[in-house]
Amino acid sequence: MMSKGKTAITPTRAEDYAEWYQQVIRAADLAENAPVRGCMVIKPMGYALWENIQRELDDRFKATGHKNAYFPLFIPKSFLEKEAQHVKGFAKECAVVTHYRLKQRPDGVLDVDPEAALEEPLIVRPTSETIIGAMFAKWIQSYRDLPLLLNQWANVVRWEMRPRMFLRTTEFLWQEGHTAHATEPEAREETRRMLEVYAEFAESCMAMPVIRGRKSESERFPGAVETYAIEAMMQDRKALQAGTSHFLGQNFARASEIKFQTGEGGEDYAWTTSWGVSTRLIGGILMTHADDDGLVAPPRLAPSQIVLLPVLRGEEQRPQVMQYLDALGAELRAVSYHGRPLRVEIDARDMRGGDKMWDWVKKGAPLRVEVGGREVEAGTVSVGKRSDAGRERQTLPRAQLVEQAAAWLDGIQTALFERARAHRAEHTRVIESRAELFDFFTPKNTDKPEIHGGFAYSPWCGDAACEDVAREQKVTIRCLPIEEVAAQGSPRGSACVLCGRPMRERAIFAKSY
Amino acid sequence: MMSKGKTAITPTRAEDYAEWYQQVIRAADLAENAPVRGCMVIKPMGYALWENIQRELDDRFKATGHKNAYFPLFIPKSFLEKEAQHVKGFAKECAVVTHYRLKQRPDGVLDVDPEAALEEPLIVRPTSETIIGAMFAKWIQSYRDLPLLLNQWANVVRWEMRPRMFLRTTEFLWQEGHTAHATEPEAREETRRMLEVYAEFAESCMAMPVIRGRKSESERFPGAVETYAIEAMMQDRKALQAGTSHFLGQNFARASEIKFQTGEGGEDYAWTTSWGVSTRLIGGILMTHADDDGLVAPPRLAPSQIVLLPVLRGEEQRPQVMQYLDALGAELRAVSYHGRPLRVEIDARDMRGGDKMWDWVKKGAPLRVEVGGREVEAGTVSVGKRSDAGRERQTLPRAQLVEQAAAWLDGIQTALFERARAHRAEHTRVIESRAELFDFFTPKNTDKPEIHGGFAYSPWCGDAACEDVAREQKVTIRCLPIEEVAAQGSPRGSACVLCGRPMRERAIFAKSY
Repeated sequence: MMSKGKTAITPTRAEDYAEWYQQVIRAADLAENAPVRGCMVIKPMGYALWENIQRELDDRFKATGHKNAYFPLFIPKSFLEKEAQHVKGFAKECAVVTHYRLKQRPDGVLDVDPEAALEEPLIVRPTSETIIGAMFAKWIQSYRDLPLLLNQWANVVRWEMRPRMFLRTTEFLWQEGHTAHATEPEAREETRRMLEVYAEFAESCMAMPVIRGRKSESERFPGAVETYAIEAMMQDRKALQAGTSHFLGQNFARASEIKFQTGEGGEDYAWTTSWGVSTRLIGGILMTHADDDGLVAPPRLAPSQIVLLPVLRGEEQRPQVMQYLDALGAELRAVSYHGRPLRVEIDARDMRGGDKMWDWVKKGAPLRVEVGGREVEAGTVSVGKRSDAGRERQTLPRAQLVEQAAAWLDGIQTALFERARAHRAEHTRVIESRAELFDFFTPKNTDKPEIHGGFAYSPWCGDAACEDVAREQKVTIRCLPIEEVAAQGSPRGSACVLCGRPMRERAIFAKSY
Repeated sequence: MMSKGKTAITPTRAEDYAEWYQQVIRAADLAENAPVRGCMVIKPMGYALWENIQRELDDRFKATGHKNAYFPLFIPKSFLEKEAQHVKGFAKECAVVTHYRLKQRPDGVLDVDPEAALEEPLIVRPTSETIIGAMFAKWIQSYRDLPLLLNQWANVVRWEMRPRMFLRTTEFLWQEGHTAHATEPEAREETRRMLEVYAEFAESCMAMPVIRGRKSESERFPGAVETYAIEAMMQDRKALQAGTSHFLGQNFARASEIKFQTGEGGEDYAWTTSWGVSTRLIGGILMTHADDDGLVAPPRLAPSQIVLLPVLRGEEQRPQVMQYLDALGAELRAVSYHGRPLRVEIDARDMRGGDKMWDWVKKGAPLRVEVGGREVEAGTVSVGKRSDAGRERQTLPRAQLVEQAAAWLDGIQTALFERARAHRAEHTRVIESRAELFDFFTPKNTDKPEIHGGFAYSPWCGDAACEDVAREQKVTIRCLPIEEVAAQGSPRGSACVLCGRPMRERAIFAKSY
């Protein structure tokens, strides 16, 4: 077992944040680099998190009237050319399919068959607005066909030169919602509704506080009229864009000819939206909650909410301890937690007890329950909470665990959220002068260039030129908040923090992933 | 409303089976051809079927100890070269990514950037044995790491020259299980276990009877030692291979260097398996149950098991009818059907009643419930069953519907299965002579080349040369049954139906999809 003071993850966050991130992924067995450049393999622990994210979001999408569908992986090159802004944003680094056959040499080596070149190259979808737009144009004839509310769970590919697991990978998994509406207000309402679905999910399930806001023009989705995002502060005080919702106006409808007959007999282009979140959220969970002992999984999404660990002093104890745990497991699985049965794992692996306990600490299971001969005799359990600062355990009657498990998990969930919110509040500062802004983002310790001030909440003139000045410091406007921001005070001045001209908006400036 | 005798689908099965298939897909709104050659768009009705298939199978995979993971979409060309038989099978028609960037001309047109050629082309996965094998080799060191039981839900691409929706498309959705074991018997047991999972699912959820069998050598998965399959008879008497489970021996372990330390301290290659089913199953559901009025969805998988249709004579009836239906919907959704809430849809669309009713007939909803002012007053409902030969409805008290809904759906499910089984038995014949075999597969009506005998259950010498003779008639050995086959009699002779030499196996010969 580990000695007191030593951490399960080396290096610690304070020692080397970027490397700590990689090591938590490794220790919690979430994912691994694939033998294909920029791609990852999502291992069962990581994929179980994704499945839980999917289930929660999918329920919310369906409850708001959306249906799932599936569109092709490949997009003809000409489709990408249709929307001018979209081209600039997406027709860059992407995977291009040029041939449809391989030829085998006598020695077994494969060559691309030059005779099997495609007339028109196909792009592996980086996002699906253009191909879905082409289908919407076929399906939408009249106002009676609207609104059309679809979602797709899919893989997408954006060639990444500097990949980082979960945060930026060449291939990633995501969902993309695509909707079409008869009127501008309806489409704008949809955009905001889905932003709120994301925010509510992030806060209640991921225990990750977010700031809801609009993007500045320079940070908008290519082709969008307005992009909304939820932004979260990670433990290194950088921002993570965790979800986006785009009001596309009639731009894509014009590009794809999505026209409909109005109720009044006229003809109009539809108003469309799109919105998405991805496996990047797993990176967000990690960087919001993990500590120097590994992952801390928020209970609502944890692959195993409670792990039951037999502690055996001699093989002869095994039958009665396992019988006790099997019964306890069944009782716990009968408990409903937010409408689903508790996820309970009995870990009967043949490992040293201490190693097994630490394995679950690193994997972030919210509650660990140890049972040995003594507990069986006394009808008790020994419970450890992952989120506790210390590593103490508590012995209590078995029935009490069953009765209180759901409430405990809720308590842990709330505590994680509150801790993250306090961290954000502590590192969000109202800043009204350029000198202070630059100082805020200048690391004080040159050994740790990643540790800077956090979020600056500042007045902005609205001019992209000022964003360029900030970008020189690797700082961008993360969003123009559409909700109150909990910060140390609130901006009083009305002069742009960068140029001193009159303010147009208040903005969150930050370094980001 | 349609006059008696007229069908909702034109042409009927008897008139043109292949075209009928396309028209049912269209009428039930399941899918559409995509603007990308060989690909399809799966529409919400089709995707909901797939989601229900996924949920049922995923539960079964997890119950048998498997976990989900996700592996990259792209496979380096050199990986495909590793297993000699596998190369021959899969390194043919596939999508090849050769470049990672597009360049935009001033006029907006995009070109493949010749400077962004990949050093090693990437293949869009046609199946994932080679890339998963590479990861297994990293993960498996010792017998303690075995068995490793993984599954992946993913899209795959096999370039199709003659695509057909759901049955053969360039991109399709599937699951692929991949497992590694310490011993040959364990791996063989896994192969058979997953075949049985597929068979049980097909029969109990899809209501599609299947024959479990081994494939002949010429029909095996490239690189497998043994391939098992479930084969079903469609209404045109052709066979559909609905799922396969492969015992891969140590072939892929050798190719990917999946080695482990045995309990005795030696070293051995792991024994691996793989198994999969795909969106092809949706084609199977359609061709097993659909009729000349459209889809007939088996209740266990139907997107909407019960649709509630308001029948309004005047707008003033709307509030009370909708209130009645909302309450009825809530009561029905509270009913548990095979462990899940009943899927109930209230269709309040503004359409003519007859059109709406026929829409649901074509979409195959198992139970349609009509409610108008009269029913509200009497506290009754008017119920129509999709699977009934006629189109009669039955009026009964509302409480009786709620009480009996689950049992009715089970009754429909069983009736569909029995009907399909009777169809298969009727068209499965024991055949022991070559002349009779050829005659069996010769269409009697030259107008309908698709209507031939069905399944022939015949002795076979085991020689691939005899399979080649059958192939000239477009007939193949679908499987060597490992269960009793319900046929009109059973083979008595022991001479190969094709060459007269001594029999080695009994085989199902059929034309197939």
